[in-house]
Amino acid sequence: MALRARGLAGEIRVWSPSPSTRSACAEASWCDRVSDSPEDACEGADLVVLCGPVDRIPPLLEKIAPFCSNGSLVTDVGSTKSAICETGARLFPSDHPASFLGSHPMAGSEKSGLSHARADLFEGRTCFLTPTGAESAGAMEQARTLWEKLGMTLIRCSPEEHDRMVARISHLPHIVASVLAATLESGPPEERLGAGSGLRDTTRVAAGDPSLWEAILLQNGSAVGEALDRFEEELRTFRNALRSDDEALRRFLEKARRYRLALDPDTQPS
Amino acid sequence: MALRARGLAGEIRVWSPSPSTRSACAEASWCDRVSDSPEDACEGADLVVLCGPVDRIPPLLEKIAPFCSNGSLVTDVGSTKSAICETGARLFPSDHPASFLGSHPMAGSEKSGLSHARADLFEGRTCFLTPTGAESAGAMEQARTLWEKLGMTLIRCSPEEHDRMVARISHLPHIVASVLAATLESGPPEERLGAGSGLRDTTRVAAGDPSLWEAILLQNGSAVGEALDRFEEELRTFRNALRSDDEALRRFLEKARRYRLALDPDTQPS
Repeated sequence: MALRARGLAGEIRVWSPSPSTRSACAEASWCDRVSDSPEDACEGADLVVLCGPVDRIPPLLEKIAPFCSNGSLVTDVGSTKSAICETGARLFPSDHPASFLGSHPMAGSEKSGLSHARADLFEGRTCFLTPTGAESAGAMEQARTLWEKLGMTLIRCSPEEHDRMVARISHLPHIVASVLAATLESGPPEERLGAGSGLRDTTRVAAGDPSLWEAILLQNGSAVGEALDRFEEELRTFRNALRSDDEALRRFLEKARRYRLALDPDTQPS
Repeated sequence: MALRARGLAGEIRVWSPSPSTRSACAEASWCDRVSDSPEDACEGADLVVLCGPVDRIPPLLEKIAPFCSNGSLVTDVGSTKSAICETGARLFPSDHPASFLGSHPMAGSEKSGLSHARADLFEGRTCFLTPTGAESAGAMEQARTLWEKLGMTLIRCSPEEHDRMVARISHLPHIVASVLAATLESGPPEERLGAGSGLRDTTRVAAGDPSLWEAILLQNGSAVGEALDRFEEELRTFRNALRSDDEALRRFLEKARRYRLALDPDTQPS
């Protein structure tokens, strides 16, 4: 949808394992052709973008690798990169006519499904590119052009660096929001009436698709475990500060505030 | 500002301990008079609303109690209620000409200060009213009318019930957001470039004023400690689920999602 809106694509072909999504795509103005199989969707394509739960992407790569054409770029939008890029590097070695390069556009919301698709989803967001060395010289340039034309800022790092980073800045927030929501789930109904915008925002991502997140958290289990260890350490520091003198508590809250304000460079601490 | 916008007030008088806030109020169109002392601001007033850090409200009540008039309603907007209402009940017993009744409008944001004041802040939000039995028969009716005319939905409960509830739905989210932000504060600068809307929302409230929150968390320490115990239990359940089979992890994420979707009744689980 975003490629069509910017006039960046010739023919756009779609395949989905879901018959209802395929029907909906056939009606969509940005879609030129709905394929009956992933192999058909990839054959002759200059660009192949795999979007799906992270545990489905490696088997899909296995299926399409023999059908990807000369000079074509195969990429994905999965939220974890180590397992996917390892499979990609194995299936698309340097002598393969096509090239694989992992991407992770940090865009989207807690909503999923075609009905929430938006052509401006990627604008002003960050995209990770995670080369392994197996991709062709041109693949990085093709991928960079693609995401930059959709309005994204790029970060290039290894799949392993990516996974450690997103464990902290994306998977940990999801877990914390989910654990908070699960904690409150057992509360009395009148408690929910008092829910303000703070609670709503802090737990928003917990409404995300459980099957997508299950796959992400299992695939990135080790980096996620490390991020959780750091969070638990910080939680102990907070509880000690709460029990001890005011200064430690104030300093803790100030450190947290400093980090949050720095995320939005237009907001300055007062 | 909200009272003036709705034409609900005659003369509006303001006192603030900060000279710069007093100057700014003197310029504001909704303010009729800036007082030099809290006593002057309260004398002859039908309605007195105390807004400030929760540890400043009890001493302010001590100061103004002798100056509050016949039939006047004294209330506050503090985020904790037990300590404030205990002081209020002691200083405004049933034979006092004025009445105290604690309020907690659940409105506001991580921003503080007069420059972020908005006349529509209260619309569609929830307000707690926490009677102790010391207030006059008319006080509850006056307070209800006040907040309902500003567009709020009311919840009536004891100060202690209020404090246990907000420890879970407001103070716990603030702590979780702050601990998450503090965890990430030590990360490499490039990590922040990858910050998406999920991280921004989950940590938004951590940008709140540390001195206001320090006072809230210390004053509600015991209920906050209990809420944190429940959160830590749930965190252990999550970590066990992550280590064990997929079913437990999926069920955990589904429980969290169910709670979050129920907070917004217009959103239905797919």
